[in-house]
Amino acid sequence: MKLIRWGATDQEKIGVIINDISYDVSAFGGDYNEQFFNDNGLERLEAFVKANQENLIEIPSGSRLGSPLARPSKIVCIGLNYADHAKETNAPIPPEPVVFMKSTTAITGPFDEIVVPKNSVKTDWEVELAVVIGKRASYIEEADALGHVAGYVLHNDVSEREFQLERNGTWDKGKGCDTFAPLGPFMATQDEIEDVNNLRLWLTVNGQKMQDGNTSNFIFNVPFVIAYVSQFMTLLPGDIISTGTPAGVGLGFKPPVYLKEGDVVELGIDGLGTSKQLVKNYVKN
Amino acid sequence: MKLIRWGATDQEKIGVIINDISYDVSAFGGDYNEQFFNDNGLERLEAFVKANQENLIEIPSGSRLGSPLARPSKIVCIGLNYADHAKETNAPIPPEPVVFMKSTTAITGPFDEIVVPKNSVKTDWEVELAVVIGKRASYIEEADALGHVAGYVLHNDVSEREFQLERNGTWDKGKGCDTFAPLGPFMATQDEIEDVNNLRLWLTVNGQKMQDGNTSNFIFNVPFVIAYVSQFMTLLPGDIISTGTPAGVGLGFKPPVYLKEGDVVELGIDGLGTSKQLVKNYVKN
Repeated sequence: MKLIRWGATDQEKIGVIINDISYDVSAFGGDYNEQFFNDNGLERLEAFVKANQENLIEIPSGSRLGSPLARPSKIVCIGLNYADHAKETNAPIPPEPVVFMKSTTAITGPFDEIVVPKNSVKTDWEVELAVVIGKRASYIEEADALGHVAGYVLHNDVSEREFQLERNGTWDKGKGCDTFAPLGPFMATQDEIEDVNNLRLWLTVNGQKMQDGNTSNFIFNVPFVIAYVSQFMTLLPGDIISTGTPAGVGLGFKPPVYLKEGDVVELGIDGLGTSKQLVKNYVKN
Repeated sequence: MKLIRWGATDQEKIGVIINDISYDVSAFGGDYNEQFFNDNGLERLEAFVKANQENLIEIPSGSRLGSPLARPSKIVCIGLNYADHAKETNAPIPPEPVVFMKSTTAITGPFDEIVVPKNSVKTDWEVELAVVIGKRASYIEEADALGHVAGYVLHNDVSEREFQLERNGTWDKGKGCDTFAPLGPFMATQDEIEDVNNLRLWLTVNGQKMQDGNTSNFIFNVPFVIAYVSQFMTLLPGDIISTGTPAGVGLGFKPPVYLKEGDVVELGIDGLGTSKQLVKNYVKN
């Protein structure tokens, strides 16, 4: 199953994609949030879709897509999880996962604009595979980790490198600016993805290929990362773990290259679709 | 006004303290969350209390207190914000605030137990003044910052030093374990606190004074910190900013001293009451 949320910002309705056609499922009720995943929502939604498939209404073409997940309790991110990316940023291969957090106010739709923050000079891109937690996870074992997963989603872990690395710690300072977490186009349930540790992921800026990696190059793979994070904090249904980015970020170029107004970022992962963001400068409302 | 939440864990009801007596205000509806603060809840609650003061029912004595705030969208913390604490941890005085985040699953009541995490050997205490945001804040000026505050609350920013400092970054790893954020006993609205930048705060372990500081020794004071964080992420109504801890944490002792099962931690801040936590080891449920 592929879940989407569509409509105006902060007024998104829920939907599903079946055979490449997007349908509204507002009548199911609720939102794709903690309660949904906690109350066996995926199973109930599947039954709802089956029971109503003759009557589902297509979403008007041209509709805006929002993040396929409503605001989670947290976004946990893994840093330096591909050896080639660690190398390009002059960071050592981490002996265990680097963990940081991203403010959930950064969440935006997959085709919304990326806003370069006020006073930012180093806004950068990062294509990532993000895991959506389906079942509360605390001190779980690696062997049980995938049983706590609802699905997967494409994430651009937009990062301000000066805020992150040169403004006196921690990384969180450069990760949570508004619009810094475009999510989607859809969340794919786990059964849609054959091997989450073998997916190609890529990103272009203005049509030029910047990142082209594969999750088979993870230093710490998906089950390990979920089990690891659950040793330090409880993961709730709907929570997101973003698993790190491969080589090719702007910081890695010599000299570095950063996003500027008018740039177009496109990204994708096998089985999780593609997204596209136009870059704009911050303007006071 | 002083806000409390009381009753069983995850089933807390809302209440207020008037002249040292605690009253239930469940009939007001809702919870002390983002929606409450966003919808002018403090003003409406004050009117409700005034209109119903003859009929308010006292909370049964011995009732458990929960966190006075329902789960916020985030807890942002400031590190090393007292010069004496920076010195004791061998950290330089930061040129600008250190910012990190705490998983909201760490929130617990002011008299609940602190659970030493599995495999933890360095669980530490930190008495802190926490600010509760009342009005959305993005790129605000220092002069406007207090206009975005709903109130203040006592916070024990419990920290696992090995997870925080020796487990390959970032600090978030040692800050968000379950029970690591005892909040309360109550949230005091801003008008209850004459000068937030001049409050004594203290903490004892087993009756022995460990921390005894004053917010007048902040490196970065409350308005500065709020305005500063709002340059990096949008603060939502109900969000919490914890402002750092003075000297006297376990890490600062030579040799360091950490919490162990059976220890009793008590802490307080002028005008924000006191809290008390018994320390327990993690036991698998």
